[in-house]
This record gives sequence, structure tokens and C-alpha cells, in this order.
Amino acid sequence: MQSFFKPKSVAIIGASREEGKLGHIIFRNFFDNGFKKLYPINPNADEILGIRCYKSVLDVKDNIDLAVIVVPAKVVFQVLSDCVKKKIKSVIIISSGFSEVGEEGKKLEEQLKQLISKSKTRVIGPNCVGIYDAYSKVDTLFLSKVRCGRPKKGNISFISQSGAVGSTILDILYSKDIGISKFISYGNGIDVNESELIEFLGKDKTTKVIIAYIEGLRSNGRIFLEKVKKVKKPIIILKSGKSNKGTKAVSSHTGSLAGSSRIYSAAFRQFGIIEANNWEELLDYSIALSTQPSAKDNRIVIITDGGGFGVLATDEAEKLGLNIPEPSEKLKQRILQKMPSYISLHNPIDLTGDANAERYKIALTECLSSKEYDAALVIPLFQVPTLEEKVVEHIIEAKKFGKPIVVCSVGSDFSEKQNKKLIEAAIPVFPTPERAVKALRVLVRY
Amino acid sequence: MQSFFKPKSVAIIGASREEGKLGHIIFRNFFDNGFKKLYPINPNADEILGIRCYKSVLDVKDNIDLAVIVVPAKVVFQVLSDCVKKKIKSVIIISSGFSEVGEEGKKLEEQLKQLISKSKTRVIGPNCVGIYDAYSKVDTLFLSKVRCGRPKKGNISFISQSGAVGSTILDILYSKDIGISKFISYGNGIDVNESELIEFLGKDKTTKVIIAYIEGLRSNGRIFLEKVKKVKKPIIILKSGKSNKGTKAVSSHTGSLAGSSRIYSAAFRQFGIIEANNWEELLDYSIALSTQPSAKDNRIVIITDGGGFGVLATDEAEKLGLNIPEPSEKLKQRILQKMPSYISLHNPIDLTGDANAERYKIALTECLSSKEYDAALVIPLFQVPTLEEKVVEHIIEAKKFGKPIVVCSVGSDFSEKQNKKLIEAAIPVFPTPERAVKALRVLVRY
Repeated sequence: MQSFFKPKSVAIIGASREEGKLGHIIFRNFFDNGFKKLYPINPNADEILGIRCYKSVLDVKDNIDLAVIVVPAKVVFQVLSDCVKKKIKSVIIISSGFSEVGEEGKKLEEQLKQLISKSKTRVIGPNCVGIYDAYSKVDTLFLSKVRCGRPKKGNISFISQSGAVGSTILDILYSKDIGISKFISYGNGIDVNESELIEFLGKDKTTKVIIAYIEGLRSNGRIFLEKVKKVKKPIIILKSGKSNKGTKAVSSHTGSLAGSSRIYSAAFRQFGIIEANNWEELLDYSIALSTQPSAKDNRIVIITDGGGFGVLATDEAEKLGLNIPEPSEKLKQRILQKMPSYISLHNPIDLTGDANAERYKIALTECLSSKEYDAALVIPLFQVPTLEEKVVEHIIEAKKFGKPIVVCSVGSDFSEKQNKKLIEAAIPVFPTPERAVKALRVLVRY
Repeated sequence: MQSFFKPKSVAIIGASREEGKLGHIIFRNFFDNGFKKLYPINPNADEILGIRCYKSVLDVKDNIDLAVIVVPAKVVFQVLSDCVKKKIKSVIIISSGFSEVGEEGKKLEEQLKQLISKSKTRVIGPNCVGIYDAYSKVDTLFLSKVRCGRPKKGNISFISQSGAVGSTILDILYSKDIGISKFISYGNGIDVNESELIEFLGKDKTTKVIIAYIEGLRSNGRIFLEKVKKVKKPIIILKSGKSNKGTKAVSSHTGSLAGSSRIYSAAFRQFGIIEANNWEELLDYSIALSTQPSAKDNRIVIITDGGGFGVLATDEAEKLGLNIPEPSEKLKQRILQKMPSYISLHNPIDLTGDANAERYKIALTECLSSKEYDAALVIPLFQVPTLEEKVVEHIIEAKKFGKPIVVCSVGSDFSEKQNKKLIEAAIPVFPTPERAVKALRVLVRY
């Protein structure tokens, strides 16, 4: 598997001189990213971007670690055969026109499967966008960077059955400045599938959290769950095709069976997989898990200067079964010694409409240093005039207590500026109290 | 009520020369917004920003339409008495320190109530941020514009019991460039409360949709529902204090009884109030209702080039009881005559990964001009290279069919640019398929 992500030599089969063509964009990615041993394969061209073209991978004398295939479906069998002969370890088939388009495509796909089963070549695809690795800069995405940004380095890895959903979420990660390690779109998954990818990412050093968009499993359900069980990292899955109509839509979209939602959900729970209900949850949970320690128990404290947001958070926390205990009398006394008597010392702790940063510091320090709370939800409303910007520093300082902290904060430029500072210091910030509480629940559960 | 929103003359009681003080910020708002008949009331100042100060409203010879009170709680009774004597029609009491802080404050509040009950003066507040009217530019918000933006003119009006939640949502509306008509934070609501405000907004010409954040009703529940029933505009409410702990938190936050969530939800449904579960839904629904016609029936068509997003939308639509019928054979034939045979002509209609703008035009035109569909959910994934920007124009053109259209689209700069064009043309755009479907359901139900 390593040669998919850290190839020393790469062949692009179907590399093209025409800008805008997929074979050009992919070749250009590798070229721009500084890959030196690069072999464009195109029987009708002499050179692309000054690099000599070959008619076939068999004409290349060097070893080839990775081949990327971008030729019409009908030609794929032939060029893949060449790859097998050349003993290329890893092949990504970008081309579409296989089982997803009907009977004829299914036959072509079967031929590929048989070819692979007799070889040592490993294949990702077909009908996929392939790989983006933020560290090694392998980038087989045929989407221009103008339309689809590439996220910076980070510790989340992401596998997606669907190329479109995958690249859209990748573009969102980029726009939100969230780093990733590896992105893999595996499409029809005729060889490498979600099971093997999750197993691989489980051992990957730069991957801390694994997220996945799955329509229907490409692998046997039992094998999938067994592999998942062995992975000691959080796995979050967005599963589509949960309804009757949705299942039918999955079938016409990817030709895979989606299966009953309830069976999936039950299995996910049993095997410690975190289920996301939409892509917002997929990212919310992955950000929380990749930045925060997990909570020892479920006793959370909510600290805010916006009473209403505190109440909304409380509603959600109770709904999700989190424990929101009041501070003990002793703890209340410790806090009250340093604060005005009119603050509301229940849980949520409402620092009231004239709160300043100092009150946040006191509440955070006393609550998180005590044995009464396992995690904190902080809701600073920056619209309020008395709250100084340095509250951000106090929240960041509170990381020293080693307990998870999540923040709910939202607004226009001023608030966004504060949120950015928090995010850069690895404190997750959510726009609604409900989303913050859901993320906290995941930290408590995991 | 009109003199609250279109006062010809305004007194600011507690106007201050010190920048940063609430009494200064509020005075400055009126000054900057061009109010000519402006009377700062402050016994210790001669003039503020060059405007002559008065010791009391009783010293002002002109009529005063609106007085804004920003003095310490203990002085409020005296200055309010002066307002009553002066026969000022409308008074906004910004000051806090009443029933929300305990027994002593409750007594002060009772005194105010008795005073008002014997007069013709109407009062908003106390313990509130008051009014922002995007048309008349009445702006009693003591929050600097740097921290809390003021939305542009629009047709949504927003009432909020909580000043902090209210101003945060106002700031969000500003950041999302969503226009409003009126914003009213009514705080402890000792005179004007949510019932009267909704009744008033029901008749307000620049208000098309009413949204509200409510913790506990200030008015009698039956009166509230009777008034609501008479309003022929959509009303969307975000109700907090739904859980046991949340109810308790409401009580310490505003001193009002929150009441059982189930009772509220049932009453809301019965009286045609749309319930939002978080502020995102509050805004999503208001944007949909303020820009789109309502749907005649519940048959929706989902059109996309990203199969996966189509499936997620389908899952949500089925869950919410929307009807997602396949096109009839006749309609399929009409569409197929103009499109490649490999597009997936079920519902969702998947225009596949090489979709262009023309395919969207054909699908939108054929489906929305037919009698088979009442509304459309369009999910263009702009990350896909073949989809030209002009798809935006085709979606906007489809408004001519007079049926609701909502869009799900998300991504970095390129996608955001397209989304902005749609939003400017009054097509609502949502980041997740699930949120788009929920908004569509509201259009179907209303």
C-alpha cells in the first residue's frame, strides 16, 4: 500500500498535452509537486511539459511504483495488463464507464477483477478521483485547484466511495483551513476497498482520526467490522442510502447494495464506530477528536455570558444524556470569592451580560482544576461590549488541565477573528450550541 | 406602537459624553443616523456631540415620541414617571437590574408595572437591547458596530426575549448579508410582550416573515396563540428551555417559567407556528419563506450532478415525509431526447459527473413546467470541472415556473462566488442536503 502514497516513480497513462483534459491536470499535479521520476504514457505524443512520452509502461526502463490510468474504459484492460506485466505495485484507475453504467460496464469490470486476482498489482478504483496526500503530495485529483482546494497537512484521513462527495468535502476542509493527512476516493473498489483502507490508515503515523463517506460496503460486512475493531483510532462514518428511496438511489448511483440503515447503525455502535448524520457532523466530530483529549466521564460544565445560548446548550446536553451537575457548595464558594455576587452559579454558569475575560479565567480554572467536571463547553458572546479579546488566551491556557474544551462562538468579522485564534490553538469552535454539545458527547463517548 | 419605530423626536435619558458608555453609544447611533429632533437627558452635562442637554424630559418644550432609558435601575422609576408626565407615547428601558437579579429587582419592576398601568405610555423592556429598524434607522443597540453588525433592509422581522442571543443572531444575519425589517429585544417584557409584537409585525408592511427567540412566554399562552392565529404570515420560533435542566436554567436567566416542551410543540403545530430546533434552522426557514412561493403539494424533484449528495437528500426527504416520485415515462422521454442516455433518470435525477449547465437547464425546465412536481431541490457541485458557471443563470431563470426552488451548494471561493449570485437573485442556498430538504419541507407545509 505504501507505494500508493509514497511512490518514487510515477506513470500517468493517458497523460495529455491539452489543458483542461483530465490526463493533463493529473500529470500537471505531479509535475508541479516536484516528482522527478515522472513518465507520461501517450502513444500520440512525444513529450508533455518537456518530459519524454512513452507508448506504453513496458517501454519505460526504470521501475514504476505507481501508475495512474486515465484512458477510456475500453482501453483500460489493455493498459492494466501492461502494468501487471511491468510488475507495477500500485495502480489507480480514474476512468469511469464500468459497473456504474450498466451491464456492459459490469463485464469490463469483471475482466479487470480477474486480471488483478492473478497478479500482485494492487488497484484503487475504477470510477474514482484517487488520492490526495498532503504530506507526500501525491495528487491524482482531476479537479482544478481553483474549484477544489487542497487542504494543508493535518492528522485527519478521509476515505470516500463517491468522488463528487469526496472532493466537495475536501474543498470544504480547505475552505475551513482544516488539515488532513490522506484522502482516498476508491470508487467501485474492485480491489482495494474501505476495509483495507481503514486497516492501513489505522497504522498510518500521520493519521489520528479516520473519516469515511460510504454508500454501500464494497467488502464483506463481517470482514469490515473485524478490521475496524482492530483499529485503535476514532472512526467516523457518514453512511448514505438509509431510506428506501435512498437505497434505490444508491443502487443506480454506484451499483452497490446499500442495506438497511438500522443494521448499519447497530453494527456501528457495537464496533465503536461514530455515526455522522451529515457532513457537518462528520467534520465537527473529526475536529473535536483530532484536537481534544477524550473525557474521563460525562460531567460537563457550561460557561457562558449569554444566558440564552447556555439554555440551548443545556437542552441539547440533557437530550443526549450528558451530565450537567451544579458545582458543589465548596466550589461555588471558591468561585464567588473572586466574582460579583449576581453571577448565576448553577450549570450553566452564567457570567451575565457585563462579563469580562477575568470571570471566564476564574470559572475555567476553578471548574477544570476541580474533580467535579470532565469537560467544558465555553460560550463567549463577543458581541457583548465588556468581554475583552484576551478571553481567548484564557480559554487556550485552560488546555493545561488536560480535559476536553469545546467552544461555541459565532458572528461577523470581530467574532471570526477570535474564533480563528482559538482554532489555530487547536480549540474547536462550533457555530451553534447544539453542534458544540454533540461534539462534546463524542469526546465523552469515545 | 408606530412611535417606537418611526419617532420624529427622541430623548435619550442617561445620554453620556464618555465613549464606550452605553448612554453614549445609543445617543451616537441616533446622531449618526441623522435624527434631527434629538434630546440628550443628563443633569450633569451641558451638551453632548454639540447637542444641548436637558436635566429632565420635562424641561424639553417639544413633543417627544420616543424615550430611551439608560440609567441605573434605582433611578428608572423617577425618569419613567417624568416620561409619563410628559405624555411620551413610547419608552424603551435598556437598564437591567430588575426581576432577573432577584427579589429586590422584582419589587422595582412591580413599581414600574403599576406606573405604566395607570398611563398611556407604552414600554419595551427593561433588561433589553431594544430596537433596530433597518428602514427608519431607530437603533438603541448599545453594541458597537465593530462587534455587532447591523443587517441591511429586508423583509424578515425578528423578536428576541434575550438581548445576547438576539444581538448574536443579528450579527450573524449581518455577516450572511441577510436583510431584515425590524429587530426587537423585549427583555423582561413588563408591558409590550411577544403577543403584541407578533400582532404588530403581522400588520407591518415591510415584514414578510416573523422569527422569534423565546425562553418563556411573557403573555398568557391562550392570548398569545389567539393573536398568532390571526397573523397571515409565517412565524418561526426557536424555543429554549425544553429540557428539565434547561427549564431551570431559563428560570435563573430571565425569571420566567419555561413550561413543558411537549405542550409548546403541540400548540405550535396546532396554530401553524414553525418550530426551529436551533438558530441555523431559524434562519434557514426564514430565508426560504421570505424568498420562495409555497409549494402546492409535496412532490419534489432532486436534480444533481453529485450522486452521493442526491442520495443524502433522498434519505432526509423520505424521513420527513416528502414525496419523491419518479418522472412519468412521458416526462422521461422528453428529457432523454435532449440528453445523453447514461444520465440516471430516477428521482434524484443524477446528471452524472460530466454534467454541464445545459443538462441542468433541460431537467429544470421539463420537470418544473410539468404537472408532476411542486418544488425542486438543485444540488450543483461546482468542484466538478465540466459544470459551467452559467448553470447559475439557468437556476435563476427557472423561477419563472412559480414553484419553490432551493439549492444545496458548498465549497471554497469558486463555489461561494456562485452561491452569492444565487442568493442575490433570491434563491436560498444551503450547505448540506439535509438542511436544504428541511427548508423545502417548510415550504411544502406552509
